[in-house]
Amino acid sequence: MKIQSRATPRVLSGMRPTGALHLGHYHGALKNWVRLQSTHDCFFFVADWHALSTQHERRDDLEKNVYDMVVDWLAAGIDPEQATLFIQSRMPEHAELFTLLAMSTPTAWLERTPSYKAQTEADREPATFGFLGYPLLQAADILIYKAGFVPVGEDQAAHVEVTREVARRFNRIYGAGQPILPEPQELLTETSRLPGLDGRKMSKSYGNGIAMRDTPEATAEKIRTMPTDPQRVRRSDAGDPARCPVWPLHQLYTDEATRLQLDEGCRTAGIGCLDCKQPLIEAIQREQAPWRERADEYLNNPKQVHWIVEVGTERARAVARKTLREVRSAMGLNY
Amino acid sequence: MKIQSRATPRVLSGMRPTGALHLGHYHGALKNWVRLQSTHDCFFFVADWHALSTQHERRDDLEKNVYDMVVDWLAAGIDPEQATLFIQSRMPEHAELFTLLAMSTPTAWLERTPSYKAQTEADREPATFGFLGYPLLQAADILIYKAGFVPVGEDQAAHVEVTREVARRFNRIYGAGQPILPEPQELLTETSRLPGLDGRKMSKSYGNGIAMRDTPEATAEKIRTMPTDPQRVRRSDAGDPARCPVWPLHQLYTDEATRLQLDEGCRTAGIGCLDCKQPLIEAIQREQAPWRERADEYLNNPKQVHWIVEVGTERARAVARKTLREVRSAMGLNY
Repeated sequence: MKIQSRATPRVLSGMRPTGALHLGHYHGALKNWVRLQSTHDCFFFVADWHALSTQHERRDDLEKNVYDMVVDWLAAGIDPEQATLFIQSRMPEHAELFTLLAMSTPTAWLERTPSYKAQTEADREPATFGFLGYPLLQAADILIYKAGFVPVGEDQAAHVEVTREVARRFNRIYGAGQPILPEPQELLTETSRLPGLDGRKMSKSYGNGIAMRDTPEATAEKIRTMPTDPQRVRRSDAGDPARCPVWPLHQLYTDEATRLQLDEGCRTAGIGCLDCKQPLIEAIQREQAPWRERADEYLNNPKQVHWIVEVGTERARAVARKTLREVRSAMGLNY
Repeated sequence: MKIQSRATPRVLSGMRPTGALHLGHYHGALKNWVRLQSTHDCFFFVADWHALSTQHERRDDLEKNVYDMVVDWLAAGIDPEQATLFIQSRMPEHAELFTLLAMSTPTAWLERTPSYKAQTEADREPATFGFLGYPLLQAADILIYKAGFVPVGEDQAAHVEVTREVARRFNRIYGAGQPILPEPQELLTETSRLPGLDGRKMSKSYGNGIAMRDTPEATAEKIRTMPTDPQRVRRSDAGDPARCPVWPLHQLYTDEATRLQLDEGCRTAGIGCLDCKQPLIEAIQREQAPWRERADEYLNNPKQVHWIVEVGTERARAVARKTLREVRSAMGLNY
């Protein structure tokens, strides 16, 4: 096991267990995690409590979704010898810090987060206290490990800002001149937003995804049946890549020389859409092959996955308990 | 140790650690606790997290306040062989259930509780998320022990109603026809609201209290200097008990025959105010004597108090963990 030096800055990131991950998850987050694990002390966790804050009706598959996701992480190349992997719901310490931070956090800070506003305006389900408290639970997730950096997508930036405010106020009230909870920084790293099979953002809820572990056949079939430029009705019609939902995938998967040829072929009706799709199919299949291979190893040995989570959870718990002791002590609760 | 039969209904009650308790605490709550412990399976806890939800600035004396209060409970006659005594902040299980219940509890239910409305309208400090969540944390305190009964003052009745609603909604969403969290009932029992030395409700914040452990001298001095009927300026003036702040104390402490004599003496200027106060001083000193005696034993043996709390905490924890396992399992989190 690699021992991270104290100087290695800690990164904290979580993902909701939505089941088998798709290419959007990989290019939007996981690829970045794989890069970070060799340079940072990475703590990656399954945010299963967070999943309950908006989806409390769907729970039957939670356990399967949790472990499917961990397998996908490992398949993507997350190395449990380098990174610490754990499950939020196994850490009552997060709930305790959440409860303690609640005592010094103004409700107004949480009411003004964009996701809460959006939900309450959409007015489908009654907004729950857990959903209102989502950014505060996230603050507890981050602060309990004294994470220095949090990789974020744009839509999460407001939440890291709340985390900093929560830490600052806690330190001011309880810190006695000594900051107990360091303020984390956003880690803005390049990730790619992947369009799905219908051109919208790839998302499980849209059903427009290619799973990381889709078989080569399934992948080929999904790409083959993708819509293309709607104005290219016949093979002999010239097309325009700018109008084609397949094209953004080429921009991610296909080298520039090939792309130039495809662009030319499309605009002149020199090639058909299936010709254009073929190199993309092959590129994605090449990307998926090692994932499926690694995933198969873990699926054949589910005990190993449980063991990895077990070790990660205990590693995380040691850090979490230390922080909690400091927090309790600062609050006068160390009896 | 008395083994409570399964049929014995469980009672749950907590008290904020405000330091040494006064006669108002005894007659308003503790006296009732002492009665209940022989007929019910009583869980009494120090609500130190709740204290933080409104007083997060004052924490230096928290530990002292917690143990002073436990000593007062024991002094009042709470028997650790009959009742289970513990400290909320030692039970991360409450925080976990609080967090889980948050996922299914609409924020609106908490916003409409009278104490939250009163605080936000008074608009002193910004209302914290913990203060908004106070009734939900209280629901967790109660539901985690599947308490059948909660002794309440009138101002707490709304909170038990929230607890029932929280349980009902949780059971509907996660129960699959089987209620997981039973709805508790209020236990309306006769308690006395004790006026303080200035005629207002006896309260630490008013500084108008007689502590359970005040010395006989301190008690006598406090009563002697109490204001009486403001219209009885001279010894020779006739008074009216209805206008006298001392009189409600006589109604609690003095037998009817003596009260009739005092009433007569006051109205005819037959006795002076100090004459009237003397039987009250003696009655309160008689009440305090066994408390001080028991308290002294515990104060000479602080380890025993810690041990009582330790045993109670572990007893409570066993029950709390069992409920949490059922809750997690119902929510699909049993992995």
